[in-house]
Amino acid sequence: MSQNVVFIIEYVGTNFHGWQMQPGMRTLQGELERILAMLFHKERVIIHTSGRTDSGVHARAQVISALLDITQEELPTLARSISNLLRGEVCVRAIAILPKEFHPRYSAERKQYEYKMLSSPVPPTFNADFVYWTHRDLNIEAMAKAASVLIGEHDFVSFQGSTEEPIPTVKTIYRSEFIQRGQEISYLIEGNGFLKQMVRNIVGSLIKIGEGKKTPEWINDILAAKDRRVAGPTAPAHGLFLNWVLYQEFRSDEPWGKFDNGLIFRS
Amino acid sequence: MSQNVVFIIEYVGTNFHGWQMQPGMRTLQGELERILAMLFHKERVIIHTSGRTDSGVHARAQVISALLDITQEELPTLARSISNLLRGEVCVRAIAILPKEFHPRYSAERKQYEYKMLSSPVPPTFNADFVYWTHRDLNIEAMAKAASVLIGEHDFVSFQGSTEEPIPTVKTIYRSEFIQRGQEISYLIEGNGFLKQMVRNIVGSLIKIGEGKKTPEWINDILAAKDRRVAGPTAPAHGLFLNWVLYQEFRSDEPWGKFDNGLIFRS
Repeated sequence: MSQNVVFIIEYVGTNFHGWQMQPGMRTLQGELERILAMLFHKERVIIHTSGRTDSGVHARAQVISALLDITQEELPTLARSISNLLRGEVCVRAIAILPKEFHPRYSAERKQYEYKMLSSPVPPTFNADFVYWTHRDLNIEAMAKAASVLIGEHDFVSFQGSTEEPIPTVKTIYRSEFIQRGQEISYLIEGNGFLKQMVRNIVGSLIKIGEGKKTPEWINDILAAKDRRVAGPTAPAHGLFLNWVLYQEFRSDEPWGKFDNGLIFRS
Repeated sequence: MSQNVVFIIEYVGTNFHGWQMQPGMRTLQGELERILAMLFHKERVIIHTSGRTDSGVHARAQVISALLDITQEELPTLARSISNLLRGEVCVRAIAILPKEFHPRYSAERKQYEYKMLSSPVPPTFNADFVYWTHRDLNIEAMAKAASVLIGEHDFVSFQGSTEEPIPTVKTIYRSEFIQRGQEISYLIEGNGFLKQMVRNIVGSLIKIGEGKKTPEWINDILAAKDRRVAGPTAPAHGLFLNWVLYQEFRSDEPWGKFDNGLIFRS
């Protein structure tokens, strides 16, 4: 009997052309659907996600689902198989059978993204693929002031990348702040939904402010303009992480939430 | 006038065939000597190191030197050039002109290595190149007990990889212990010198003990045997970091030690 299998996955986006399947490209959806089709002897398995990530963007606890003929007891083996086949790039942190009504995207209530920056005279090595580096000083106070303006309900169309799928551009942001640890700076943003490249376009604008090229008040002008051309450039993908997705039943980075058995978690 | 230029470098060993120059191979020595020769318009520049690292081994604060025609004022630009040319793989954390008597290897008094292990049902992603992963449980207490036996002066010939350069195999170990943070385990070892693959061979043996295949007392047998065939296998290179090198004048990971000006440090 086909079950709604939900996976919580961690991935390194560096060597994938983003989430969405594209012919001739190595994408996360493409690789994962191929592996599931192979393991379940199907022509095609369709995977749903809480949302697509761009090429180079990472995820700590992305949520995906697929309809599969599987029993509860077989879940850990499936999780291990996927982690082994994509070793070092994708790992399944948790797996469970959930009611058919659960959909990674439509059931999602909130998401958190993190954008990591390093302001330092010397470039990063060990985490070079996981942080945006600048040799310039960043004025965190100015960036934080601008970031706080985004909290609440706003039309974020000025921060939307070009897209052919018109969707509502009014979103609610619950958190938008900076955390500094030495020369490492993290920008955390939580919202009920995000437009294409929205976080990277926000960060690109905040960096302009951090560099002193714009004042914090500029963020108000961008929101008011409702025009992508007014905002700053798109920040590079490799500093961005999808941290978690919140559902009524669980938050994807929390171990042993309200899942059933069959769940494996890193910590 | 030619100066004894000392560099403290951080590197990701993943994509290098170790330190030592080898024809047709991308090695750290080969790349760095090539870059210095290019920048200083020389046929060849010779680099000295505190010690070679194997293919795949990383360094947080390796110490190297070269004789170069350079002034104090030109040092920061040289450091930045190297970091930019090997972006994301090697960065120069510090640079200084030291007296000609200073030699990275012969002046070294002590070194610290770290071997990182992850014992977890799911494999690592973001740090896959920087930690040895095992799905097995490791008995840290047994490993720590065995590790403590190594402290003091011993003949480590049983832990020496095959080499054509006979060197004294009696070394003094000042520290040999485990630090655990959740599922991440670090083995720290400090000594006045290390033989070829010595740390990896020690770790390979400690892992056998951690897995319960050998008792902690086995370490005494290995030392006593003075025979490489008695010890455990060589642990994989990618978990190993050279943390620092200690000299009379400074420890390589300490910012702003007794160096002159011209020093740039990450933190």
